[in-house]
Amino acid sequence: MYTQEEISGIVRQYMASLVFPAHPRELFSPIEYSLEEGGKRLRPTLLLMACNLFSEQPREALPAAAAVEIFHNFTLLHDDIMDNAEVRRGKPSVHRRWGTNAAILSGDAMMIYAYTLLEQCDPGLLPALLETFNRMAMEVCEGQQYDMDFEHRESVSEEEYLNMIRLKTSALLAGSARLGALIGGADGESLDKLERFATQLGLAFQLQDDLLDTYGDSQTLGKAIGGDILEGKKTYLMIRALALANATQRTTLLTTSHDESLSAPEKIMRIRALYDRFGIARLTEQAISHHMSLALEALEALRIDKERTAPLKALAQGLMKRNK
Amino acid sequence: MYTQEEISGIVRQYMASLVFPAHPRELFSPIEYSLEEGGKRLRPTLLLMACNLFSEQPREALPAAAAVEIFHNFTLLHDDIMDNAEVRRGKPSVHRRWGTNAAILSGDAMMIYAYTLLEQCDPGLLPALLETFNRMAMEVCEGQQYDMDFEHRESVSEEEYLNMIRLKTSALLAGSARLGALIGGADGESLDKLERFATQLGLAFQLQDDLLDTYGDSQTLGKAIGGDILEGKKTYLMIRALALANATQRTTLLTTSHDESLSAPEKIMRIRALYDRFGIARLTEQAISHHMSLALEALEALRIDKERTAPLKALAQGLMKRNK
Repeated sequence: MYTQEEISGIVRQYMASLVFPAHPRELFSPIEYSLEEGGKRLRPTLLLMACNLFSEQPREALPAAAAVEIFHNFTLLHDDIMDNAEVRRGKPSVHRRWGTNAAILSGDAMMIYAYTLLEQCDPGLLPALLETFNRMAMEVCEGQQYDMDFEHRESVSEEEYLNMIRLKTSALLAGSARLGALIGGADGESLDKLERFATQLGLAFQLQDDLLDTYGDSQTLGKAIGGDILEGKKTYLMIRALALANATQRTTLLTTSHDESLSAPEKIMRIRALYDRFGIARLTEQAISHHMSLALEALEALRIDKERTAPLKALAQGLMKRNK
Repeated sequence: MYTQEEISGIVRQYMASLVFPAHPRELFSPIEYSLEEGGKRLRPTLLLMACNLFSEQPREALPAAAAVEIFHNFTLLHDDIMDNAEVRRGKPSVHRRWGTNAAILSGDAMMIYAYTLLEQCDPGLLPALLETFNRMAMEVCEGQQYDMDFEHRESVSEEEYLNMIRLKTSALLAGSARLGALIGGADGESLDKLERFATQLGLAFQLQDDLLDTYGDSQTLGKAIGGDILEGKKTYLMIRALALANATQRTTLLTTSHDESLSAPEKIMRIRALYDRFGIARLTEQAISHHMSLALEALEALRIDKERTAPLKALAQGLMKRNK
């Protein structure tokens, strides 16, 4: 059995060993750039840990792990075009550096490259792995579409929001856990429990993302606080606040982000004042704890020695301590 | 054995039977729109015919055939964003109708949907089918990148151009033929010959596209002639002309398309006058015939009854008679 640090090291080494064709330069350079060190490599680490629960050869899961990481980075690349995001992990986004056309095409090639890595998996497992990968990939697209849809809607229910982040964020974690466990040789019941673990972990993870964007510490976060408020995003915080607001407060919540008479700090202060009045930070922390508990319950329900599940538990708890 | 019309009918019926999820609407509507009747369905027809060479059950190849057709339409969707094309098959392009973001994301979902169809193939063949599909898909991206690169280059050799269209156009035809033949149970030698047939057919097909854009009949073509000239595209015609031009003629070839003192008909007339002086239409026709001969040679080299290869031969010859 491998420790979290060992798994993480194996993943980083493998990702760094991937070699892309030299030509055409403009197609593969943005891919190499997107995959440079800097990400958390959370999904491939989770995938290898899930495999290691059932098998002493987690390295066999490396191609699938890299496939998921590359698919994830492909979604970031295309999302950055759609969101017109200038920066990714402290560097110019691909479409800012190479242009939109190159970013679209390199993203496409990244997705194909992810599928190409699946060729290296056990042929007998390929049907199940492909099915899992495809479902996961389609769910991520569905989640991104709902996220874009919500921008144009006045009201989004908490349930709709959770379903959206289940697709946009949890699907990749659940898919990673399932792929790893499939490669490790898990039975059907274990697959379902691990998927539930990763789904709930993903929900907790995304809600924490929402919370940190408004209530995090800009110093430790390495970015300005309040970006979601300034963009008028319908985050979990906003949705809970809208549900508790009266008509006047509702108007403030919905119109402040595009009120040109206000400075950015004023906008953030105004929205945060309402969040504070409703106790939104505490409500969000409760929701995070709730989903985190469900995740750990699913993990503990596995018929596996506690010591084997310890690295996954540590990974989950480590994520909740993160500040970026 | 099925006739060309029967195969074509089976393909159309299957494509029309595909059902996409109802939600999110904005994700799947553009996909349904892209796949509406109107295309030639050349690639899935070729795929089923290749299968039917070796098997009496070409319907087994339908999911792979639809996967290729959907992948092809995905490339058109993303290419239309990159080329800023307003119209596709006489209808507004997806990005014109739904916006760029929806077009990027729907295209991504289309590609994933294509891979999802592969799940329905014989599990034992899946490794070979996935490998072929991935290689084909990556080559198409490489071809599109070279095509974009060439726009910014003064000189492109005939060899470089042929390599670009081998990737951008032939790869999909070669991949289709190989996938169909794999499903039909072809041996390695037959696979290679069929791939060669489809590659050469693709080259002839693309060169004819270039020729028709400048020398076709706008009436039968259903679009204005000279689009490539007005866009300053480095087509086969332009590349052959540049190779034969002196310094003055070269300047005319390279600068006419963006000369603001000229009307569109004047630009077309000026470039065509040079093409005519160099006999470019005849040179292109010779190249088309050359690649068509190589295609038919590869087909005839198959150790299969002539009557079985007749539909593929008819398909190829029909393509050469097309005027759009």
